This record gives sequence, C-alpha cells and structure tokens, in this order.
Amino acid sequence: MPKEHMDARCTSLPTKPIESVAALHQPVPSSGLALDALEPSDLRRLDEPQIDALCDEIRAFLIESVSQTGGHLASNLGVVELTVALHRAFDSPKDKIIWDVGHQSYVHKILTGRGGQFATLRQKEGVSGFPRRDESPHDPFNTGHSSTSLSAAMGMACAREQRGESHHVVGVIGDGALTGGMVYEALNHIGSQRIPLIIVLNDNNMSISHNVGSVHYLLSRVRSARGYIGMKRSIATRSPGLARRLERLKNAFKYALLSSAFFEELGIKYLGPIDGHNVRTLETMLERAKNFSCPVLLHAITTKGKGFSAAENNPEKFHGIVSKEAYETNKLDPIRSNSACFGEALCAIAERDPSVVALTAAMPSGTGLKAFAERFPSRFFDVGIAEPHAVTLAAGMAAGGLKPVFAVYSTFLQRAYDQTLHDVCLQELPVVFAVDRAGPVGEDGPTHHGVYDIGFLTQMPGMTVYAPATQDELVEMLGQAIALGKPAAIRYPRNALPRRPITTPVAHGKWEIVSPIEPTTLIATGDMLPVAIEAASQLRQSGNPCGVVNARFLAPLDTDMLARLRGCHTLAVLEAGILNGGLGEHCLRQLADPSEDTPFAGRFHAFGVPDSPLPHASVDELYEMSGLTAAAVVRRVRADQNDNLLRKKA
Amino acid sequence: MPKEHMDARCTSLPTKPIESVAALHQPVPSSGLALDALEPSDLRRLDEPQIDALCDEIRAFLIESVSQTGGHLASNLGVVELTVALHRAFDSPKDKIIWDVGHQSYVHKILTGRGGQFATLRQKEGVSGFPRRDESPHDPFNTGHSSTSLSAAMGMACAREQRGESHHVVGVIGDGALTGGMVYEALNHIGSQRIPLIIVLNDNNMSISHNVGSVHYLLSRVRSARGYIGMKRSIATRSPGLARRLERLKNAFKYALLSSAFFEELGIKYLGPIDGHNVRTLETMLERAKNFSCPVLLHAITTKGKGFSAAENNPEKFHGIVSKEAYETNKLDPIRSNSACFGEALCAIAERDPSVVALTAAMPSGTGLKAFAERFPSRFFDVGIAEPHAVTLAAGMAAGGLKPVFAVYSTFLQRAYDQTLHDVCLQELPVVFAVDRAGPVGEDGPTHHGVYDIGFLTQMPGMTVYAPATQDELVEMLGQAIALGKPAAIRYPRNALPRRPITTPVAHGKWEIVSPIEPTTLIATGDMLPVAIEAASQLRQSGNPCGVVNARFLAPLDTDMLARLRGCHTLAVLEAGILNGGLGEHCLRQLADPSEDTPFAGRFHAFGVPDSPLPHASVDELYEMSGLTAAAVVRRVRADQNDNLLRKKA
Repeated sequence: MPKEHMDARCTSLPTKPIESVAALHQPVPSSGLALDALEPSDLRRLDEPQIDALCDEIRAFLIESVSQTGGHLASNLGVVELTVALHRAFDSPKDKIIWDVGHQSYVHKILTGRGGQFATLRQKEGVSGFPRRDESPHDPFNTGHSSTSLSAAMGMACAREQRGESHHVVGVIGDGALTGGMVYEALNHIGSQRIPLIIVLNDNNMSISHNVGSVHYLLSRVRSARGYIGMKRSIATRSPGLARRLERLKNAFKYALLSSAFFEELGIKYLGPIDGHNVRTLETMLERAKNFSCPVLLHAITTKGKGFSAAENNPEKFHGIVSKEAYETNKLDPIRSNSACFGEALCAIAERDPSVVALTAAMPSGTGLKAFAERFPSRFFDVGIAEPHAVTLAAGMAAGGLKPVFAVYSTFLQRAYDQTLHDVCLQELPVVFAVDRAGPVGEDGPTHHGVYDIGFLTQMPGMTVYAPATQDELVEMLGQAIALGKPAAIRYPRNALPRRPITTPVAHGKWEIVSPIEPTTLIATGDMLPVAIEAASQLRQSGNPCGVVNARFLAPLDTDMLARLRGCHTLAVLEAGILNGGLGEHCLRQLADPSEDTPFAGRFHAFGVPDSPLPHASVDELYEMSGLTAAAVVRRVRADQNDNLLRKKA
Repeated sequence: MPKEHMDARCTSLPTKPIESVAALHQPVPSSGLALDALEPSDLRRLDEPQIDALCDEIRAFLIESVSQTGGHLASNLGVVELTVALHRAFDSPKDKIIWDVGHQSYVHKILTGRGGQFATLRQKEGVSGFPRRDESPHDPFNTGHSSTSLSAAMGMACAREQRGESHHVVGVIGDGALTGGMVYEALNHIGSQRIPLIIVLNDNNMSISHNVGSVHYLLSRVRSARGYIGMKRSIATRSPGLARRLERLKNAFKYALLSSAFFEELGIKYLGPIDGHNVRTLETMLERAKNFSCPVLLHAITTKGKGFSAAENNPEKFHGIVSKEAYETNKLDPIRSNSACFGEALCAIAERDPSVVALTAAMPSGTGLKAFAERFPSRFFDVGIAEPHAVTLAAGMAAGGLKPVFAVYSTFLQRAYDQTLHDVCLQELPVVFAVDRAGPVGEDGPTHHGVYDIGFLTQMPGMTVYAPATQDELVEMLGQAIALGKPAAIRYPRNALPRRPITTPVAHGKWEIVSPIEPTTLIATGDMLPVAIEAASQLRQSGNPCGVVNARFLAPLDTDMLARLRGCHTLAVLEAGILNGGLGEHCLRQLADPSEDTPFAGRFHAFGVPDSPLPHASVDELYEMSGLTAAAVVRRVRADQNDNLLRKKA
C-alpha cells in the first residue's frame, strides 16, 4: 500500500511532540558567521571546515527555531548542504533559484538575509513559509503548489535568451513532485528547446519507500543500481559466490542505465546520482552543470530530516507543520478533526457498501484516509501528486460502476477544475469530492487558502455542493452524497466543526431554520453558522430580532427558503470564501428573480473573504481580517440599519 | 518552428474548399454490408477481401458524408483499419473502448449502428462529433478535451477488478495527446498497478514532422530506427558501403531501443511499432495484447487522411472542421475572424515592442498566431497540448521581464485554472490571456463551449477581464492589456465581432454608454451588445425608452456606472456565459451594496447561458436556445413590466 508522501504537501494539523532537542546540539567548530544576517557572498569566503560548521549551525538553528514557531522541519534539514552548495555555486539574485513547492526554502531564506526574522516564521506579517517575490529579490518566483518550478524556470530561461542576458536559472524539485503531470509538459518543452537550464532533483530517501507510482520505481532503480556497481566491484574480489548471486541483478542494472536515459531521451543531460549531503561533490557537479549549453538534470540523493535523529527516523511525523503547541503542551489535539470525522464515516459506509472506493493525491493522512487505507487496501488509491488524473480516474471508476470518493484539499482541487467539469459533471457521473481545508487555512498563506471552491464548485453543472455546519452533518451528508448517484462535493474547513445532534433532518437542497426568520435574518454556511448564531444573539440582546438560516447546500439553492426571505428588510449571507461568484451573489440573483411576485427590496450584506488574496496568519486572525466574526457582522448590520433609519427620516 | 498540431484540437473556422471527391471513389469488391446499421458482430463474419472492401466503403462513405455535413475528416480516415481491427478483436460494449479527444470516433460510430444517422452529424439533435454515453452503450466515456483517456481507462480497469468482472479496457490515444501532462500521471499510475489495460498509441505520420516537444522526437526515433533495422539488413547484403554509412546511425538505434523502454520503464509492456493500416497485423497484435496480465501499449503507425489524396497531402487543412459551406460555396469566409484580428494586432504590437512573446498550446492556426509565428519565430512558443505548462511558463517569462500573451480557447484554459490563479494572479505577473472561442462554440458541443470563463476569470484576484464588443475594441484592448503590467484576459467569441470605429475611448474599468441611460437599461458584454442594441430599439419602438451600456470590462466592474444605474426601474444584463458567477450576479452584488445611499430596488433580468450544459448545435441555434436574442430579451422585459404594472394596480 502506498504511504503518505509528504514532500510536497502540508498537513496543518498538530503532530505528535518530539523529545528534547537539546541533546542534538553537538559542539562543533564555528563558521564564524552570524545566521541572522547572512548573505550568499559570505559563503564563498569559507573554507571546508567552516562550511561543515555552517551546515551544523544552520541545522541546530532550524531545529531550535522551528520548534518554537512551528513549520516544516524534516524537508529543510534535508537540503542544508544542497542549499549551501547552490549559493556557493550560483550568484543569487542574478542567478535565479526556484524552489518547487517551496516549503524547503528555509535554509535559502537563512542564507539570503532572513535568518534574523525566523522567530516570526509563518506568523502574521512575519517571514512566509514559502518563497515570496515581495519578501526578497532572492525569491524569483512564488511557489506553494507542487510541480510548477520547471515551467517557471523554463519561462525565465526563455526570458533570459530573449533579453540577451547571461545568468543561470535553477529549478530545485523533489522526487515527489515528479508525479505531477505538468512536470512532464515542462520536461518535454525543456528537452526540445535545448537552452541552458539546470534542474536539481532533490531525491530524498524517504520517498524510496513511500513514494507512489512508476517514476518512483524508476528513480529507485537508478539509485540501487549505481550503488550496486560500486558494491559489486568490491565484493567480486572478496567473495566470488556473492558476486555471482549479484550477477542475477543484471536486469536491474540494465534498467538503471535506461533510467538515466529517461531524462536524456527527453533531451536533458543527466548527471548523478550524487550524495546530496556533500557540499564539495554538490559544488563540483553544479559547476559542471553550469558549463553545459543544454538543459541539465543533477540527481542528488538526500535524507529527509538529516541530522535530527527523531526526524530522520520518522520523517513523516516531522515533515508536516510542527505546531508550537505540540511542542509546548506535549499532547495531541484532543478535538477530533473534520478529516478524522470524514475518514471514520467513510470507513463505516465502506463496510456496508463494497462499491465505495477512496482516492487521494498523496494526502492519505492529511485527508483522514489513513484508516480507510489500512482497512480497505485494495479499495484505496493514492495516485501521487496528480489531482487531474485522480479526478478523471474517479470518473472512469464511476462509469465502471464504483462509488469513488476523492478526498482533497480545496486549494489542490483547483488543479483539476477542468477534469471535474469535463469528465465528472458533463457526464453526471457519481463522484464524491470530499473538499477538506475549505476556507482560510492559516499559516501556509495565499497559495493554500481554500477560498475559491464555493465559486468554482457552484459553477459546475449538476454538482450538489454540501456545506456541513457540524461534524454530525458532515457524516450525514457524506452518506447522502454517496447515495446520490450524481456529482457531489462536501466542503469543510480546517478547524474542527462542532459536534451537535441533527434536529432538522438533512433534506436535499433544503436549508435549516436555526432561529425563526425575522425582518433581519442571517444566512450562514458551514463554519460561519456559529458566527451567525452569536451575531444574532447579540443583535437580539440589543432589541433587534434576528433569524438564522443554515445554508446546508451551496448548490442547489433552497429557492423556497429564499422566497420566504424576500420579505426581509435586512439579509446577510456569511461564507468562508471569496465574494465573487459566492453564495451571496447566487442568493441575490434568486432574490432578484423578477418572475417572482415580490423581488427582494431590502438591505443586503455579503460577508466573505475579500477578493484580494489573504496573507499568511492564523485562521482566527484571517477570519478577523475578513470581517467574518460575530462582532463585525453586528457592527455592519447595526450601522446600516442606523444609516438607513437616518436616511428615511431625512 | 513547430507547426500546428491538429490531432487533438478543432478549428471551427471554414477551411479552403477541396477538389471534387468523385474521382476518389474507386470501384472495389463489396463487403456485402450496409453501413447504415452495422454492428460489431457483423465484422467478425467477414473474410479478408471483405474486410478490405469494408474499409474502402467506410472511407468513401466518410468522404461523401463529411463533405455534406462538415466534420473531422483526416483524423477519421486515418483510423479506419484500426477501428475495424478493434471491433473485430474486442467485444464492445462488454469490452470498453475509450477514444482520447474523440473526434476520430466516426468510424467507431459507423461500426456501432450509427451510420444511418450520419447525415445529422454535429447538427442539433443529430449524432455528436464526439463519443457520448447517452448516444450509445458502445461509448463508455465521453471525451472532447485531450489526454483524458488513459485516466478514464484506468478508472474502468480498477472498477472491473473491484467488481470481479473480466472484460477488456482499451484507451486509444494519439501521439499529440502525449504532450498533455495528465497522460504521465495516468501512465505513472497504470505502470505501478500492473493490472491489465490496453493502450493503443495512434501515431500518425503527420505528427512526425509537425508535433512539438521531446516526446515527438522520442517516438520518431522509434520509428526511424525500427525501419532502419529492416533496411539495414537488406542493404548490408547489397551495398556494404551504404551499410557502413548507416552504421553511423547506431546512436539513433540505441535511442530507439531506449524509446520502447520509455514505456517499459514505467511498467507498461510495449508492442510495436506496427502498420496501423493493416487490419491483420493490428488484429494479431491486439490479440497478443489481450493475453498480457499487465498494462500493454501497442504502437500503431497511421497516416492521417489515408486514402483521400487531397487530405493525405495536406492533412492540416482537412483535419479541422470542414464546413458544409466551404464545400458548397467554394470560397473562403470573407469576414475576418476575431482570431485573425487578434493575430494581426499582436504582430503590430510585437513589431514595436521586442519584449512581447506569444504562446499557444498546439493551436497556432486556430488562435490566429500563424503570422506571428512566421514573423517572430524566436518569440513564438508552441508547447503542445499543455495548457498548465503554458500558463506557468508565461508566468516565468513575465517574472523574467517579458510580456507574454497566451492565446487559448476558453474551454481549454479550464485546464490551467490553478496555474492562472496560483502562478499568475497571486504574483500579479503581467501575463495576457487572449481567450478565444468564448461563449457557445457550436457543433463541437458541451465539452467545447466556452461558457465558464466569465465565472472563473472574474474569480481570479487582480485579473482585469476585457470583453470587446467590436474588433476595433479587441485591438485597442490588446494594446492596453499588454501595457497594463498586471494579469489580464480578453475574451472574444467564435463568430466575428463587427468592425466599428471606437467613439468613446476605452478607459480602464469603464463601461460605455451606447444609448443614454433610461429607466429601462440593458447592460451587455461582448457579442451581446448588438443583441441589446436591437432589443432596445424594439422596446423604444413600442414606447419604452431603453438605454444600452457596453460592459467593456468584466473585471473590475464599473462601479460608478452601476451607481448611476441604481435608480433604474428595470435593468437587464446580457452575457454569453453561464449565469452562476457571471456578470449579472457581480452587478447585483454591487447594486445591492448597502453602503451606498440607494440600493437598487427595481426589476432585474439576467440573460445568459443556462447552468445546465448546452448541447451541440449551430452557434445561432445555441443563442436562440439560451434566450440570447433581441426577441427573447424584448419578450421577457415587456412581460415583466406588464406583470409588474398589473401587480401594482392590483
């Protein structure tokens, strides 16, 4: 069974705490550099022992700092030497270094003047956890989603050629990101154009065992066979019997030769594989790579979590977002996540219905599918970081009579917009999308906020879009969605929804009246419901009767309910998504429908995420910044009613 | 310079007429079958001469029929033998045959009982030009966009395994579709799972010279080297000198071996290459493929347009939609297309500004970039059928200081939703999207209608979305978009926009008052403007003064104009896109903004494409079906005003 590949994905849930890190600080010779204000030029003045010392210092700093702030640890510990070598071999920012996904860019940030701000990592107005053009000239391209770096690097290389410039362009990509299809589109283009461009394949050992798909086998064959050559040479002289047995591995060796050819066939010079933790070797090979007048791929083998025994032994746990709380409180989050709730519910349904299968794009843990994968290994499909394939695969499964459930983060489903529309919805195939991390996700920032899905899912023809306000609704809606026999999506946020028994049964396309409809009524969807309930309570306390409606369905709309709401003098819609194309706008069109007797003529307030991108900050801060709090709702509704009153009097 | 690869793309503009087809009908022995009601089982009763006769009959029928109806000719002429062999070797509909893209499925349709309906091909309520599940049980999966077949086939194969069924699943994919990244996601998954699945690679000669990218080189190496082996054997005995010279090609031979290994490395058994026009060979190899317990790829070499000399000699011209008119009138469309207008304008700008570059995803002709490609070959980038890469490539180019313009059909831009959002808009990079075929496109049907882009482009943060109503506006807006320095899109329809000098200068984010604002005012965008003008004229004639506003920008909205329109008693918005998340809804939110003194309290009509998918039909029929005609607008506005009057009286 394929296991979670974490290299290019973030799980934003707290992980288990680690033991004390103090023991890891070994006394080492000093580089003589201060990490808080390093510049790449500083590196080039160091001798070999100083470089080694610097790598150790960076590693200790990362462990110390990330254990305070939270963030990606293992992936950054794995690229310390690689990043140092890159900044010695290349002249950033003149030369461009693009980090695929980008959560492994901490060392790069430390080496480019940002070490001093690491206490603010991933915090509001602090250092971003990803490369940001607006943060440093050393970040030439923003990343976040997987597999974009080679296209971006090729674009920069083309620009360089057009403009007659002469710098180097380097894309650093993990082996996990090679499961994403756009990498092949890029490799295909890069290979055909033959302009200089350097690709560094950061291939970490973890992925040897855990990665999914054929490309993984391919890379592991390269590694094993290269090792095999050296091993064979020394064994042949010492143990002829063992050498004979190894001879049988010849086939593997043939494959290995072919594997380097995999890239060379595409027109890309292949160098490696080399030790990604040896700065000298890396530098030598990077210097060689610079001299080619064609695209070059340097294959570097690294160890995720290198130098931190806890992380090295269990990189999966320490790859993800290590929250500050997890370190401090030394205990797991006691609240069941929505992902876990979904996973449990899906297992229960799958137990009864053998046609239910589950799909993930390299996120079995993050999406809560780990238990499903263990209980139903033959019904669980991890396709790697390949959302487009996952969706069309699910469509094929549905056409073949299965009931596929694709669990995916809102932000990553964006990758499969066309497949969702073209392969699922236009054929009305019963694929269920479990859209996790819907709404602002917090510290990962703008590339990861799930604030577009309400807009794009409600565009999809014939798609039912469920928005549970409680975990009980999530469970109920999952069952209904699987039974529906048509395209369906369920969106739920990162923060745990409350548990509360369902009092009004969930009926298809029907909303729930939580507090009786009043002249002022709030329509809230998903995790906005508690905000609306609190706001209504405050409005009531100040003498303004206020109804609350739970918009359980984003599509289809509850047109009967909206007809009842046409007479209100103030309506507000609350949603954790952008306003353009959101629930508020859909409601307005329905309310304004002139074929109804009395179009809505009251005051209308749309509460949602602003159309300009939210930054990184905690989820609570982001809701605050978006005006998605009870206080903000009360303030706006009251102010408008006062203004309106004044206007009427005037 | 890469040339247009037409294998997986449709150009819906009339092409040049061809000479008489009568001369092509050679007298042949008969198969004894009637083409109007064939079933696959009929094929299995034929002997070899009858099969050959049948292929000839199908070819003649295709030429005759498609010359009457319009449709894809060359690609279907290229797969006659392949389709016959598939239906002899496999037992459809029990066995599933999935056609990538699907416009080469005509022969399949003829062999599965639909020959009799070919006079209705691609016409309203007639046979679709693509596989349709609702048309026949022999069509197991709808296709239209490129590169989906392998994911769908894998989904069906997984379903078969889960359900303990035993049929075969076959995906037929052209070499052009191999430039699309999701194919690699699928191959990666298929290779890793090792369950039986048959891939037929339909590799047509045309693509040897015209296809783009490394995969093309790879495939052509396979072909040349296989031919080389046979050739070398015979030559070596007859001409040792020539044999020696050929020896120097050894390197190519090595590559050829590696190339078949390209698939085998991924875990997929490779068979071929074989002659795709020899039914016997094809059947033999398909039978072999059936016996493997792992995924198999059969590489068949075909000739596009086979058997039709005009098409065979110039398949580019005859691949695309051959319109009935082109045959009948024997002359080219005299109206300059919007694509040509765009192409000319871009050339003029590029002449002045060397930083302007153009990109296409395998559509240089369709998007009007052919002249640009000829005049500025080093500034023209055809990346193959790879929209995700194209968009991130453009983002990289923009980050590198260029001004990239990506010309793409609306429906295909759907493939790059995430890249547009994540790589262009979140970084505010100056990439210009020339969104062609926006709105209903006609005969290609639901998979190709460009009716979602208003919704998804206006969701993109910071994206300016231009909607020219005339070709003069298109030219002006292209200049402004390139000068803007921020993400921008220009959407224009398939049908030619009128040419009309601009009277009100195009100002950023400002709409144009075409007829003075009246209590009844129509807001129209793009090609809806003439409809609004005509509707307003009819309303005026019946004593109802009516204003017309040209919504030149879909984003940002002209909030000043909307403020002026708040006092109207009837507003209508006309757009050639779906209503969910469209301009009408965005206007409503702005009109309802309670922070303004007087929210709109009149009647509101949203005219657009219905949210359920439009079928295939002519563009005019589709506008008619969507109520996007002057008559329909007048009818709805009048009826509502009468009703409203009655209500007020009552």
